[in-house]
Amino acid sequence: MAGPDGAIDHLIALMAKLPGLGPRSARRAVLHMIRKRALLLIPLADALSEVARTARTCVNCGNVATADLCAICSDDRRQNGTLCVVEEVGDLWAMERAGAFKGRYHVLGGTLSALEDRGPEDLGLSHLAERIVAEQVSEVILALNATVDGQTTAHYIAGLLEDGVTVTSLAQGVPVGGELDYLDDGTISAALKARKSI
Amino acid sequence: MAGPDGAIDHLIALMAKLPGLGPRSARRAVLHMIRKRALLLIPLADALSEVARTARTCVNCGNVATADLCAICSDDRRQNGTLCVVEEVGDLWAMERAGAFKGRYHVLGGTLSALEDRGPEDLGLSHLAERIVAEQVSEVILALNATVDGQTTAHYIAGLLEDGVTVTSLAQGVPVGGELDYLDDGTISAALKARKSI
Repeated sequence: MAGPDGAIDHLIALMAKLPGLGPRSARRAVLHMIRKRALLLIPLADALSEVARTARTCVNCGNVATADLCAICSDDRRQNGTLCVVEEVGDLWAMERAGAFKGRYHVLGGTLSALEDRGPEDLGLSHLAERIVAEQVSEVILALNATVDGQTTAHYIAGLLEDGVTVTSLAQGVPVGGELDYLDDGTISAALKARKSI
Repeated sequence: MAGPDGAIDHLIALMAKLPGLGPRSARRAVLHMIRKRALLLIPLADALSEVARTARTCVNCGNVATADLCAICSDDRRQNGTLCVVEEVGDLWAMERAGAFKGRYHVLGGTLSALEDRGPEDLGLSHLAERIVAEQVSEVILALNATVDGQTTAHYIAGLLEDGVTVTSLAQGVPVGGELDYLDDGTISAALKARKSI
């Protein structure tokens, strides 16, 4: 035993399994929580129990949700007809933080990968095709990562879709606030090729 | 809303208040937990609820505990007669990880500090004096931090104690595995002054 009681030790061991935390920062976090019992420990225990009880995968889009349909799928104010396809839930959250997209999402849960032996059937692409028909989607935005696997998957999905659907992808170029000197050659080439008149 | 549901959003906001985590790492941690529901989310929720229900301060030594007496104070195998005085619970845990001390502890909960207006009465030094008599302590080890406030407090406590009690402090010197080139001058001077024949 490393000093604290059994229950506290157990909590530290579990906290240390979270990404970004190790044994040392888990100990600091647990001590901090115990000191801030009313402000942090009790609310956090309640919030975790609530999420543990309710968290599931949205049956429609693959986002995490606290009901069968996630907050986005069940929101009537979102535009139908435009579907943004992302790899992971974290990517969906990143898109939402940007706040520039008002349509619906579809989370693949990964990419095609020869290395990891993931084929089209593992990504549930037939469910994506069903949604495109059922929700009368006219544009599919492939917001996949600019990695080899991400782009392979984007090309594969683009090839699957019917002619009536517009397929687009995110523009590549210089990040906002980015300095040319710190950018890789590929990004500079892509930004130059996609140059626009001002 | 940043993408996730209300309950998940709330959990992320609370996690982001932990030391060592920010909004980005809190999101990553929560997504990771939701993915590892059975292995991590549910055990963590249970462990937090258990600690929230039971965590308190040991009435004898000031350690955190899940009962009125902490695991160390209620352990009969620990030696009586030697009392190690530390500033914070984290320091006690660090001593326990080293595993070199088999006696009892006393947690001050801070140091004397002119800047933060903490005097002797705020540290409960009378309770320390009572313990020394009641537990027939023959040696008090002042394991306070090697800071100005820590050393001021150590000198103050050493002055308070009766003549019958031996007062010691941790040795200062080169850390195990430490390289001289990376050590500060004060540590090298202290190590030289306290040099030993081999």
